[in-house]
Amino acid sequence: MAYVNPKGDFDRDTDYLTDRITADGRDGYPVEPGRYRLVVARACPWANRAIIVRRLLGLEDVLSIGFCGPTHDERSWTFDLDPGGVDPVLGIHYLRDAYDKRIPDYPKGVTVPAIVDVPTGEVVTNDFAQITLDLSTEWTAHHREGAPQLYPQPLRAEIDEVAQRIYTEVNNGVYRCGFAGSQDAYDAAYDRLFTALDWLTERLGKQRYLVGDTITEADVRLFTTLARFDPVYHGHFKCNRSKLTELPVLWAYARDLFQTPGFGDTVDFVQIKAHYYIVHTDINPTRVVPKGPELGGWLTPHGREALGGRPFGDGTPPGPTKPGEEVPAGHRAG
Amino acid sequence: MAYVNPKGDFDRDTDYLTDRITADGRDGYPVEPGRYRLVVARACPWANRAIIVRRLLGLEDVLSIGFCGPTHDERSWTFDLDPGGVDPVLGIHYLRDAYDKRIPDYPKGVTVPAIVDVPTGEVVTNDFAQITLDLSTEWTAHHREGAPQLYPQPLRAEIDEVAQRIYTEVNNGVYRCGFAGSQDAYDAAYDRLFTALDWLTERLGKQRYLVGDTITEADVRLFTTLARFDPVYHGHFKCNRSKLTELPVLWAYARDLFQTPGFGDTVDFVQIKAHYYIVHTDINPTRVVPKGPELGGWLTPHGREALGGRPFGDGTPPGPTKPGEEVPAGHRAG
Repeated sequence: MAYVNPKGDFDRDTDYLTDRITADGRDGYPVEPGRYRLVVARACPWANRAIIVRRLLGLEDVLSIGFCGPTHDERSWTFDLDPGGVDPVLGIHYLRDAYDKRIPDYPKGVTVPAIVDVPTGEVVTNDFAQITLDLSTEWTAHHREGAPQLYPQPLRAEIDEVAQRIYTEVNNGVYRCGFAGSQDAYDAAYDRLFTALDWLTERLGKQRYLVGDTITEADVRLFTTLARFDPVYHGHFKCNRSKLTELPVLWAYARDLFQTPGFGDTVDFVQIKAHYYIVHTDINPTRVVPKGPELGGWLTPHGREALGGRPFGDGTPPGPTKPGEEVPAGHRAG
Repeated sequence: MAYVNPKGDFDRDTDYLTDRITADGRDGYPVEPGRYRLVVARACPWANRAIIVRRLLGLEDVLSIGFCGPTHDERSWTFDLDPGGVDPVLGIHYLRDAYDKRIPDYPKGVTVPAIVDVPTGEVVTNDFAQITLDLSTEWTAHHREGAPQLYPQPLRAEIDEVAQRIYTEVNNGVYRCGFAGSQDAYDAAYDRLFTALDWLTERLGKQRYLVGDTITEADVRLFTTLARFDPVYHGHFKCNRSKLTELPVLWAYARDLFQTPGFGDTVDFVQIKAHYYIVHTDINPTRVVPKGPELGGWLTPHGREALGGRPFGDGTPPGPTKPGEEVPAGHRAG
């Protein structure tokens, strides 16, 4: 997960299990309804992407989902939210067990999202960036009627380019601020982050979505970081030039997505805050979780319709969240 | 200074040296021009009160001032900003030396503000609440022409009452949040703090100043906490229901005072942030100091004139800050 190099910079360990579940099964893992289980934690921004995309595409009945709790120890995320602390499909308490099943004494970080092959109990992949792209492009036979095109062929080059900058500067940029091991490393990280947010403000001041005129993978990737900005990154990671609520364009953009079915209804603010503030004892030794900020603003009008755009393009919004997968009432905005 | 009791609540050590410098000298310390030195740190909210009151009353030429640096070790505040790290009047490096001179191996916290008797080099008092009141009421013979009445006789009961609630709920309330040793203690402290801020919003929505229609000691006491709210207390102490900038009445009130000569010109945001983030390693082990928030808003119009009020009553504003006592340009708002 998180490491700080000798200069004090945060380096993300990006060494993942990279087998892919594909329509043609070339890695040995063909797309197959009911065969795999997506394991997530609502707290985690990388996992939140997969929760959103699975729901937007209507894959709930072909790819089941397991929810780890918001906190974890040094060894593993755990299924402590489930009765008896055991995932009802995989029958394990620690997600690590599914990693060890694949590679005994798995030596890398046990991360979410992970997709587990249910028959063998082995993790297939935890390559978060590829997971959502494959849900869009390899699972097409099982998409719901009206599923949006989140990674349309003609826009892939632009999505990739925008998403790459968002990844290095924003998604990972907030961690670079929070886990900086020196003042210089932090100062540089802060400048990079807010330079990127200024670029995004400029871009999104003129267009409703990041690429094209519909929601795409790029919006999903930016959204999960923006949703965590004021509750966590602003204070805990010292990303405090301003709150998101003080950046009018980005705040309106974030609310627009939040109020779009499939986005805000996946966000669990209680678990998000618990995760960061309780797990990162190196920067929050007391483990006290802030009560703020107030979140009612997420549901206020955003006015972004004036920019045009068609959120789902020629498709339709997803229906209500699948029963059993709803964010608890007290954990939502408003 | 700061202690956490077994229930996790923060308790402030309020055991001070309480001799008073008075017009009649009844404690052995008569008011006398040039005899005493006020030792402060710009970072400290309790010391900031004394800096403000001394300047509003025009006592600069009769009561000299020594500035400790923003950070200190477990033993003492130090004069590390002075050439050679030595206060030019007291000739000491550690403020502790003046406490030890008064009481050998002084067993309590070495705090600012402190007033030192220059001839003996001994601390007379560090009773921060009494110090500013005595500047207003005992040093009257030396007040400047046009000095405001910060503690006028007819309003003392009301000032005392308001100031008491501000002390327990706000001035000390932010520390109670930040140093809470348990989630329960923090949650209770947060509720108390914001309940008080809501009370103040109600009160200050109808009147320009806290008591009467001019600035008083009560405003000075609230101001120094509000000035530190967004730079420090919001993130570092988790007082994050909202930023001050998101509380329209209190934010306008704070800006009004900030823009009043004698208030904002005493505030050193760089030292404030350095103090809290570097000294409190128990809640900020990395000692990284946030770059934010942006502070330009302090200088924007506040519109509070519409509520009436006469900031200095029948008096006048103080002139420019005494040369040599200015907050460095890069440490101010805007």
